[in-house]
Amino acid sequence: MPTIVVDVMPKAELLDPQGKAVAGALQRLGVSEFNGVRIGKRFELTVDGEVGEDTLAAARRIADEILSNSVIEDVVGIEVVE
Amino acid sequence: MPTIVVDVMPKAELLDPQGKAVAGALQRLGVSEFNGVRIGKRFELTVDGEVGEDTLAAARRIADEILSNSVIEDVVGIEVVE
Repeated sequence: MPTIVVDVMPKAELLDPQGKAVAGALQRLGVSEFNGVRIGKRFELTVDGEVGEDTLAAARRIADEILSNSVIEDVVGIEVVE
Repeated sequence: MPTIVVDVMPKAELLDPQGKAVAGALQRLGVSEFNGVRIGKRFELTVDGEVGEDTLAAARRIADEILSNSVIEDVVGIEVVE
């Protein structure tokens, strides 16, 4: 079944306290390879049959209007995986 | 700055009530293209300098041990983006 993956991340100018908390935890645990963590959402939309232009357009529309809050989030990716 | 993206999804055999709620909302709003929605997390780990084998190994380790809960979640992807 084809799946459309929509990735949503908090806007770059926002603080993302959840990511900050994870970054702080990594530091305390002695993991020093990463200097920043941001946490967003990954939506997997399953589709019956083939993914046509209209299905992709619908995915783009709901990504902008329903799955993300454009005040605080950006849709960073929409892709089809099998 | 290179970024390592870690994708975490709820295990397939789990119900994912958040995804179910979104799927129900889409149906009520008349969006009929998608027959299932599952919602996971996308972590963006920023790295200073280059991403070597050791940095990737560290990413894999924290993905399994810290970023995901292996009882209810699977790490479905780890990739480097620039």
